[in-house]
Amino acid sequence: MMASAAYVGDFTVDDILSRKDADGVTVADALEIIGYRGDSAVGAQKFSSFIELHIEQGPILEAEGKTIGVVDSGQGLLWYDGRITGFESHAGSTPMRLRRDALATLSEIVLAMETIAKKHGPNAVGTIGEAVIAKPSRNVIPGEIAFTVDCRSADAAIMDALDADLRAATAEISARRKVEVALDLIWRKAPTRFDPKLVDAVEAAAKKLGFSHRRITSGAGHDACNLNTRIPAAMVFVPCKDGVSHNELEDATQADCTAGANVLMHTVLALAGVAS
Amino acid sequence: MMASAAYVGDFTVDDILSRKDADGVTVADALEIIGYRGDSAVGAQKFSSFIELHIEQGPILEAEGKTIGVVDSGQGLLWYDGRITGFESHAGSTPMRLRRDALATLSEIVLAMETIAKKHGPNAVGTIGEAVIAKPSRNVIPGEIAFTVDCRSADAAIMDALDADLRAATAEISARRKVEVALDLIWRKAPTRFDPKLVDAVEAAAKKLGFSHRRITSGAGHDACNLNTRIPAAMVFVPCKDGVSHNELEDATQADCTAGANVLMHTVLALAGVAS
Repeated sequence: MMASAAYVGDFTVDDILSRKDADGVTVADALEIIGYRGDSAVGAQKFSSFIELHIEQGPILEAEGKTIGVVDSGQGLLWYDGRITGFESHAGSTPMRLRRDALATLSEIVLAMETIAKKHGPNAVGTIGEAVIAKPSRNVIPGEIAFTVDCRSADAAIMDALDADLRAATAEISARRKVEVALDLIWRKAPTRFDPKLVDAVEAAAKKLGFSHRRITSGAGHDACNLNTRIPAAMVFVPCKDGVSHNELEDATQADCTAGANVLMHTVLALAGVAS
Repeated sequence: MMASAAYVGDFTVDDILSRKDADGVTVADALEIIGYRGDSAVGAQKFSSFIELHIEQGPILEAEGKTIGVVDSGQGLLWYDGRITGFESHAGSTPMRLRRDALATLSEIVLAMETIAKKHGPNAVGTIGEAVIAKPSRNVIPGEIAFTVDCRSADAAIMDALDADLRAATAEISARRKVEVALDLIWRKAPTRFDPKLVDAVEAAAKKLGFSHRRITSGAGHDACNLNTRIPAAMVFVPCKDGVSHNELEDATQADCTAGANVLMHTVLALAGVAS
């Protein structure tokens, strides 16, 4: 989603080009290497609208036996970078009561995030996906941990509540354990309401082609969510096996993918005023 | 402590020589590089006894204003390698109730370890010092984590209770979260009772030299603990600043180190029957 974020101006082009992967390769370098770094200005190319086809990445369509998801909304997102600073000391000779254990602190934050997301559910999720102990050793109490947090909801008021509850829980844990916790919000993306005319067009195409369908909210973020802030956008979902995504087991049937591609094509043809 | 473990036969020499550091360098290679790989058989050199001088690595001597710790015992140790296998999935589109989150599972185990060690305290500690998420990503629920556990007590019955409670807690958490947890005991070292004659000799030397002193248990493991299983051993402790160890802030005064060295020398002279 970095390219669409740069297109709409959520991040500058230079910022995106300077981002590095785990091996230290920047986006700029990677684009050069594959010959994809063009010379036209980002944003110069204009679009009348944007329709995106994707697997659902969730369990709803499969569970309800529907072929097409007519995506009318997308979850908003809160991304945080966190850092815990406790105190490294010897695992054998440091009494339990004198410890300032960064991993025990993180553990409380992880479980608090889970409790908070459930409390505001079902329209809320919260995840700690990354956690790295600075100098891990079998017989040393962890002193410093970097971690990330991802919170989402399709409801802006719930996003505010997730943020407030996470900050309150973190402050309480930090004070009680005498361990410093920094929690920086690095990205807040508002919930997406896709363009009603385009959503209707996707629904009409699914109906015309005779596919079972339902309105649905996207749990994941997509280029369409970024672009929707500048140009009319919508999405077409197809089911995926067991709702699994971001996992090598991710799967979708050829029949469902074909159905999705046909809905995409007929939506575009209808919007372009071309007879089907 | 690898060399003393090989000397007493807790691990084979080949096992120890094949161990690798984080850069993949084996102990055998490292010994060659620094010119320390000799040709005499491990265990060939015999000792009548072994006295080791060390900083306490804990807060007791400093808190009580004592110069010398007469170490009469050492904690036993349980080392485990753990692996959690949950299920990687998308942080945005996977509802909270469908998650099998390896990091939330680890978090419960970390806090259970803390509770169990406190329950059996003050003569017990438990630590998770290493935890590595297999494929960490900001927007992916962690699916697999490798971790290590270090439990200690100077009391063998408490060690058994720590082991039983940790296994029971892990089994309960694993079953409730439908996440697989493997917990392998890779090393069990019994508590150390240092040789009474040598301990008395250390105490007599401290008394003769006029240093304040007390009997103490070592929280950390030492070569003396390994060697004590084959030959008479004992230890001399001196205070360290704020009880800090395994941290770059580790510190001890020159006066305390000198006192410890003098107690060590006079203990050895007395054991050798040489007049002071």
